[in-house]
Amino acid sequence: MKNKIANALSDFFYEYETPRQVLVRNRRVGVVCRLIQLGVLVYIIGWVFIYEKGYQSTDTAVSSVFTKMKGQGYTNVSGNEKVWDVADYVFPPQGDSSFVVMTNYIVTEGQRMGRCPEVCENAPTCCTDADCEEGSFKRQMTGVCANRTKTCEVLAWCPVEDDHNIPDPPLLMSAENYTLFIKNSVTFPLFDVTRSNLVEGINSSYIGKCLHDPEDAPLCPIFRLGDIVKLSGFNFETIARVGGAIGIVVDWTCNFDLHLKHCKPKYTFHGLYGNPAETDKAKASVGYNFRYARHYMENSVQKRTLYKVFGIRVDIIVQSLARKFDIIPTLTAIGSGVGIFGVATVVCDLVLLYLLPKREFYKHMKFKNTNTYAKVRSSHNPNTTPSPQKVTCDCDSCL
Amino acid sequence: MKNKIANALSDFFYEYETPRQVLVRNRRVGVVCRLIQLGVLVYIIGWVFIYEKGYQSTDTAVSSVFTKMKGQGYTNVSGNEKVWDVADYVFPPQGDSSFVVMTNYIVTEGQRMGRCPEVCENAPTCCTDADCEEGSFKRQMTGVCANRTKTCEVLAWCPVEDDHNIPDPPLLMSAENYTLFIKNSVTFPLFDVTRSNLVEGINSSYIGKCLHDPEDAPLCPIFRLGDIVKLSGFNFETIARVGGAIGIVVDWTCNFDLHLKHCKPKYTFHGLYGNPAETDKAKASVGYNFRYARHYMENSVQKRTLYKVFGIRVDIIVQSLARKFDIIPTLTAIGSGVGIFGVATVVCDLVLLYLLPKREFYKHMKFKNTNTYAKVRSSHNPNTTPSPQKVTCDCDSCL
Amino acid sequence: MKNKIANALSDFFYEYETPRQVLVRNRRVGVVCRLIQLGVLVYIIGWVFIYEKGYQSTDTAVSSVFTKMKGQGYTNVSGNEKVWDVADYVFPPQGDSSFVVMTNYIVTEGQRMGRCPEVCENAPTCCTDADCEEGSFKRQMTGVCANRTKTCEVLAWCPVEDDHNIPDPPLLMSAENYTLFIKNSVTFPLFDVTRSNLVEGINSSYIGKCLHDPEDAPLCPIFRLGDIVKLSGFNFETIARVGGAIGIVVDWTCNFDLHLKHCKPKYTFHGLYGNPAETDKAKASVGYNFRYARHYMENSVQKRTLYKVFGIRVDIIVQSLARKFDIIPTLTAIGSGVGIFGVATVVCDLVLLYLLPKREFYKHMKFKNTNTYAKVRSSHNPNTTPSPQKVTCDCDSCL
Repeated sequence: MKNKIANALSDFFYEYETPRQVLVRNRRVGVVCRLIQLGVLVYIIGWVFIYEKGYQSTDTAVSSVFTKMKGQGYTNVSGNEKVWDVADYVFPPQGDSSFVVMTNYIVTEGQRMGRCPEVCENAPTCCTDADCEEGSFKRQMTGVCANRTKTCEVLAWCPVEDDHNIPDPPLLMSAENYTLFIKNSVTFPLFDVTRSNLVEGINSSYIGKCLHDPEDAPLCPIFRLGDIVKLSGFNFETIARVGGAIGIVVDWTCNFDLHLKHCKPKYTFHGLYGNPAETDKAKASVGYNFRYARHYMENSVQKRTLYKVFGIRVDIIVQSLARKFDIIPTLTAIGSGVGIFGVATVVCDLVLLYLLPKREFYKHMKFKNTNTYAKVRSSHNPNTTPSPQKVTCDCDSCL
Repeated sequence: MKNKIANALSDFFYEYETPRQVLVRNRRVGVVCRLIQLGVLVYIIGWVFIYEKGYQSTDTAVSSVFTKMKGQGYTNVSGNEKVWDVADYVFPPQGDSSFVVMTNYIVTEGQRMGRCPEVCENAPTCCTDADCEEGSFKRQMTGVCANRTKTCEVLAWCPVEDDHNIPDPPLLMSAENYTLFIKNSVTFPLFDVTRSNLVEGINSSYIGKCLHDPEDAPLCPIFRLGDIVKLSGFNFETIARVGGAIGIVVDWTCNFDLHLKHCKPKYTFHGLYGNPAETDKAKASVGYNFRYARHYMENSVQKRTLYKVFGIRVDIIVQSLARKFDIIPTLTAIGSGVGIFGVATVVCDLVLLYLLPKREFYKHMKFKNTNTYAKVRSSHNPNTTPSPQKVTCDCDSCL
Repeated sequence: MKNKIANALSDFFYEYETPRQVLVRNRRVGVVCRLIQLGVLVYIIGWVFIYEKGYQSTDTAVSSVFTKMKGQGYTNVSGNEKVWDVADYVFPPQGDSSFVVMTNYIVTEGQRMGRCPEVCENAPTCCTDADCEEGSFKRQMTGVCANRTKTCEVLAWCPVEDDHNIPDPPLLMSAENYTLFIKNSVTFPLFDVTRSNLVEGINSSYIGKCLHDPEDAPLCPIFRLGDIVKLSGFNFETIARVGGAIGIVVDWTCNFDLHLKHCKPKYTFHGLYGNPAETDKAKASVGYNFRYARHYMENSVQKRTLYKVFGIRVDIIVQSLARKFDIIPTLTAIGSGVGIFGVATVVCDLVLLYLLPKREFYKHMKFKNTNTYAKVRSSHNPNTTPSPQKVTCDCDSCL
């Protein structure tokens, strides 16, 4: 028994099966088949491996972004000179990856809670108090019609903001010269690699004097706001007046089979929610503004200064794709490539067995039929002496 | 030599190998095998290709979200009427993808730095100064026991906030009627496609009058806060009182083999950190509140108004998955499908060679043994004239 | 006709092809081949299936984070005692996943718009008014040289901030004892699973008294700021003085083939943009600060208190990878594995047919040449009675 197992094992280890094959010597089939096989080979090696780098596994990064604006704005509204620094024009102040730079504003100073008439436009021009229904949805109507403005009186922060005229030219055109500093670090968890956008060669002294330029200084993390707007296809004065949203895409497409230092960010700029390159449909809603208030106390009365801020909203969008050699995708690609090779053989076989004139002959060569064999075999089993002709025939049928 | 290579090449190109096969005519094995092959075929075509769309490659999007709230709140606290507009109730004001809508608050007005007794609850009821240890961890104790309240005196913004009674009903129930406008643009970098949630047909005039409804207006990007709360399974009054977090999932599941216009967002709503559909375990921590302060100067003294804000935190979560035909996954699927076909053959062979009664016969048919052959060959090598019988036998063994 | 189709169908269903194979009994080739096959098998089962879990499909989560700081700071600047609570030291206040905890600051009180001399350092030491060119880029020069400070006069918020001396030790060293509470919920859309970081066993009472510790309380979502800083490799006093950025990675690596309760978050901490473990290159830009202003009115004059805030910026980074059994990757892995098995056979064949001494013999065994056969066949086609010897030879050539 033990012997038997040992025998079986040694049989298993010393033996090896390889499929028997017919070598069909036929120009047409041969060329067709070799071309198909060549095509599959070119596809696997050229496309899957070299072009699409199918031998690599991929990973996307988790990232963290910090931004810092620099520069001073200056406004002169009817002789009232004012300087705007970072604490005044960036929202929120703490350097998020998404922030707004104020470029224009409508200010309503000294608002206090009270009753005052609505601003004319949009408001109903009323005649009698009855028209000013109380407690309507959008505004808290008081039910009184103000004689002077012919609009309903409302309970609101008074005076009511009048935002019908957006300052033109924008008040903070000087925003064009602000600079933006982006710090971005990405981590590819699968490959355990962390990179910062301050790559090799981008040291403090370089940062101190460089300005991003797509061609001359593509790695400099300092951006002029005017350049960002221009590169994303907007006109600065337009976007500064009514506001707009711009995405700065930091693209980390890295191949970790090369040295780490080749893994560098690429910055691109494009408009969001209303890209000028898009068709009109995306323009359903352009402009960007929001309201914020500065509250204060004056003579024990709570007041606020309301700003309707028009600005450039900047979203830093980190996009990442890293690749590195990995045995599994490599072998999966090879394995499925071998499978497709098999498909090539199937196609050639179809040609061989169904299309060629000599197809019957090839079928004969390729297949051995258990049926025929069994018949023949049983026919000479009863120990009849076979004639030499019969042997040839037998042999023929078994080929 | 050159000739030889040319010959080898022409041999290579004009020849073609195809495996020789045994056609086993056996009902049982035939049916089993065909069924397995059919199963594999159905799996590959039906499941991998049609159901799971294995011929497509996938990509997730980078996205950018901008939000805008509209509506006015109204409070009447002991006759003190007040109106709340966007600048007052949204945090942060600039339209981030994650923001809070204030629905209830506890206000502590006119706080100034000083010494005052702790609020009763949670604080130790002390009798002697010795009990009020100085410099304790949570509060800056002064070491004095306030007689009036029987609590320790602390260095703090005075008066100390008393947040034991949350206003009920919530002060800003009117928040139910606020509307939220979402602008979302997504970019699929792999397919180089950018889409906005203002898809075809969603133009300014439609936005001006529509209100999101899961059935009637599923693409309208204007949402009523009350609807959002209801759709995520909360009761508005409860969530407005103690606060809560809601996720608005914008789902972009797109098939770019179809026309781009079929790529539309789907909005769903669900509670975060304490989904009512979850089991109790997720409810360990419900409610949502934070504190913020408005600072001001009064008579050269720095004061602040502290708000404990209860509100609805809304997170816009963009979820995306785009698919498009790609040659590589297609061929990988086909290739590995062919491989699985091979598995089918292996299974049938096992049945054929180890389970069937006539297994020895089939083994004989399938395998040619180099050993046997070599033996037979060597036996008639010494030029003995073989008898016809011997030839038959020889032929037999080689089949 | 109909019969014919029925026949073809029954043929198709009752027949089955299996490749004919040569059993090569050769120790060297056998062992080589079996070893290669064993290697492939070990790779597929051991590596792809067991180690890399190739039978599972993967998904990343969409997540939502809410944070809450607790604790009180205390400063005593030249006898002026002050207490700092959450509303004062966290930016933004509403509990975002990315926020800043103020640990040090330079305050410039009572700034108002006006003309005043630049602060000495960085500013040009001018002698005549001509040196102070008007309207320069960075500052709004007035063209006047201030005699007292020998610096140019500028239009600015006056007095100008002097940030040359960063308070040392940091003013809010007490920040070390602040605690951070993180609420995080993740949703894996592919598997339709939602998890919260308040997993089984983390209930309100546990949260009320626990403090995160990598070893003793790895699931407690309450973190001491000092611990976070220490675990990310920083020195608290240094980072508190000049600021810094720390990433808290919440890692959800889940295997949904196991019970859901095993899907737990893992918290790790590391420095961002200047990790101490990195080489010097990443340190090009360390420290973290931003400016923000509190505006107020005093005697109808708009004033502001400017803070240059140095602080610890905390980014909660959610990293997720869930796996679950899926039929498609399983069968793809098997299928491509079968393909690689085919490669093993190809390699063995190369050895057999090109390297072994008996290679001609094996070639003979493996291949049947249509050419030879056709020749032989045609030679005895003209009905010549073949001699027994010839038959043997014919049979030989066909083996």
